[in-house]
Amino acid sequence: MLALILFALAASRPVTELFSKNAAAAKAEAVKLTSITINNEGLEWVHVLSEGWASPLEGFMNEEQYLMCLHYQQIADGDGMIPMPVPIVLPISEEDKAAIDGKDAIVLKKADGTPVAIIRNPTVFEHRREERATRTFGINADTKHPYIEMIMAGGEWAVGGKIEVFERVVYNDGMDQWRLTPLELQKQFKDMGADAVFVFQLRNPVHNGHALLMQDTARRLKEQGFKKPVLWLSPLGGWTKDDDVPLDVRMNQHHAIIKNGVFGDTEVVLGIFPSPMLYAGPREVQWHAFSRLAGGATHYIVGRDPAGMKHPTLNALQPSLGDDLYHMWHGQTMLKLNPYLKKELTLLPFHFASYDTTTKKMAFFDPARKDDFKSISGTKMRKMAREGTTPPEGFMDPEGWQVLEKFYQGAKVEL
Amino acid sequence: MLALILFALAASRPVTELFSKNAAAAKAEAVKLTSITINNEGLEWVHVLSEGWASPLEGFMNEEQYLMCLHYQQIADGDGMIPMPVPIVLPISEEDKAAIDGKDAIVLKKADGTPVAIIRNPTVFEHRREERATRTFGINADTKHPYIEMIMAGGEWAVGGKIEVFERVVYNDGMDQWRLTPLELQKQFKDMGADAVFVFQLRNPVHNGHALLMQDTARRLKEQGFKKPVLWLSPLGGWTKDDDVPLDVRMNQHHAIIKNGVFGDTEVVLGIFPSPMLYAGPREVQWHAFSRLAGGATHYIVGRDPAGMKHPTLNALQPSLGDDLYHMWHGQTMLKLNPYLKKELTLLPFHFASYDTTTKKMAFFDPARKDDFKSISGTKMRKMAREGTTPPEGFMDPEGWQVLEKFYQGAKVEL
Repeated sequence: MLALILFALAASRPVTELFSKNAAAAKAEAVKLTSITINNEGLEWVHVLSEGWASPLEGFMNEEQYLMCLHYQQIADGDGMIPMPVPIVLPISEEDKAAIDGKDAIVLKKADGTPVAIIRNPTVFEHRREERATRTFGINADTKHPYIEMIMAGGEWAVGGKIEVFERVVYNDGMDQWRLTPLELQKQFKDMGADAVFVFQLRNPVHNGHALLMQDTARRLKEQGFKKPVLWLSPLGGWTKDDDVPLDVRMNQHHAIIKNGVFGDTEVVLGIFPSPMLYAGPREVQWHAFSRLAGGATHYIVGRDPAGMKHPTLNALQPSLGDDLYHMWHGQTMLKLNPYLKKELTLLPFHFASYDTTTKKMAFFDPARKDDFKSISGTKMRKMAREGTTPPEGFMDPEGWQVLEKFYQGAKVEL
Repeated sequence: MLALILFALAASRPVTELFSKNAAAAKAEAVKLTSITINNEGLEWVHVLSEGWASPLEGFMNEEQYLMCLHYQQIADGDGMIPMPVPIVLPISEEDKAAIDGKDAIVLKKADGTPVAIIRNPTVFEHRREERATRTFGINADTKHPYIEMIMAGGEWAVGGKIEVFERVVYNDGMDQWRLTPLELQKQFKDMGADAVFVFQLRNPVHNGHALLMQDTARRLKEQGFKKPVLWLSPLGGWTKDDDVPLDVRMNQHHAIIKNGVFGDTEVVLGIFPSPMLYAGPREVQWHAFSRLAGGATHYIVGRDPAGMKHPTLNALQPSLGDDLYHMWHGQTMLKLNPYLKKELTLLPFHFASYDTTTKKMAFFDPARKDDFKSISGTKMRKMAREGTTPPEGFMDPEGWQVLEKFYQGAKVEL
């Protein structure tokens, strides 16, 4: 059993990093090249691409990859197809298009002028923003969805091509050491002797119900014969909408609860996932799972609507669907139906945990004694933190709670 | 060579017809079942499904098939995936949903009350109209696109499940004998000794430029070693928008030009394709090609934007894209990129033919002497027919032209 599992880990999807072999030479070359300035979102995608999270993609999508992604949520990989659930494209303006016309190579720069990467043999194609937004998100394009608004504000063209990234993308925000690359994660899991790596993708604080689920998952994996299941706690690190909890606050909360042992004897690796958040529902759930394969994931935990949000018009075109943009279970369903992921990644059921007033602990919900349970929603949690109300004992590690309380009361959060 | 090609024809995709094995017994059973009334579009899809044009689909999509279609343009087929580019779903109302709740079988009836088919083990799921429209068409859902308007006017639920169709769908409009099933078409091509079947999907009158292309295609196939290439002239027979030329007029025109020999010595099989038109661009181009595999197609002719229309808002969200809903070449591109079709169907280039004023014939456009050519657009053609202006000699078979002229001048068309 163990030998087989180690083989499975060793055989994880090939990951290709896209860093320059000779960064000094590439930077010297870049000085002479026409440049395009990328925004923060563009830089986050450069980060994602450079470390191989989207392998086999070797740069921003060209038109054929863009079309395959929009239509099939896959791109060609040799003779076959491989998942590519969300478009990774670099929009440019008409002026940029004119400037790079006919160039063999261009350089991407940050807003402060720092050169970041070279695109070789760039090709330019129509961004087709309405088509991108509607096919990707399944809603109207002229809507107040925060990522769609970014798409619609982007250029009318897109530039694709292989990229060569000068050096590792860093943010100098005190969190770079938690931004492990897929290859570093693979090495770490191997060094730990992990024979199962189960991923928890998150962009919220962790309460004791989550911790219970993680411990329970490790227990069940051991029952299945795994000797060393490791939890990869993988907070999303890129752009999020304004009302999400910022990354630094979440990381402080995660550090506090790990230090205080809420995961028991389950070994945990904390590694930030550098992608921006899209709020693209089922498509994004597949992106979150697929990209983690690069880091060595073998198992994936998925719950209800993990990449959703309220519908911008509260489903005005079909109010019977309720307020949510996506169907609660379509994310999980698409992971089960994905022709590649269903073979490469084992899905783990998400047991719903709630506050058990009899034991004063988070516990798996038991419908037979449902009156013993008290639900503490995200909205309720935020309200309590803002008002300085302490949540019931056993809901969240107290030090972790303090981090949230400070944030919601407007105190500057220190790392 | 010949042996190989015959093998290729014989190995066409398995086609399963969905007719009742015992229609009398099924009709007797149906009398006792709860019924749902379907509209003309629903009946056209029953027609499509019953004859196996959408094999391996065995009925209206269930939720998993609907989701796979929306996301991947494929559905599961055994261990693999097979193209299913457009949703084939049966929308129902809240009242219908309540009526069929818990039933093991339901009957579908035409508006006049005639029972048509049984759905066994029906399952009901959310229609999610905005999501369907945006993912399928790549534009906003609250737009004046004629097929999207039908979707948005449809029920909030959909019912899926295997269907058992009582008998062949007929329309008693004098054209039923041209509605050959895929299995009948396969037999006919085999009886003719065809070693290549090249399909021309159309929903417009055929002018001599088209005929030239067909003859040229047959010639090139012979050059490639095929002994008996057969043209399958395959007009779309289902619902079309109001300003398209109606099927009966088109069929009269097609009969006239075939009788008058405009295809020369190229053998032609005329067979109506029963699907409604979606105006869904690249997705629909893939549907048109995939469904013809069932009838024995080996080669497919595809030109510019064959399933497009003007953008309902003329691309108000990105006016630089022009007036058309879809990119001119994306339909053809998606056929080339489709992981299944690129292996199963040989695409044939569409050479553009125009009116050559020097020879008074339709000829392949030659940019070296572009001033010799005169373009006769569809709009111009319709205007001439309406006003009784005879087009230049050699543009279209005169008897075929008379059919159009009669129609556009409001004369009743006789079959």
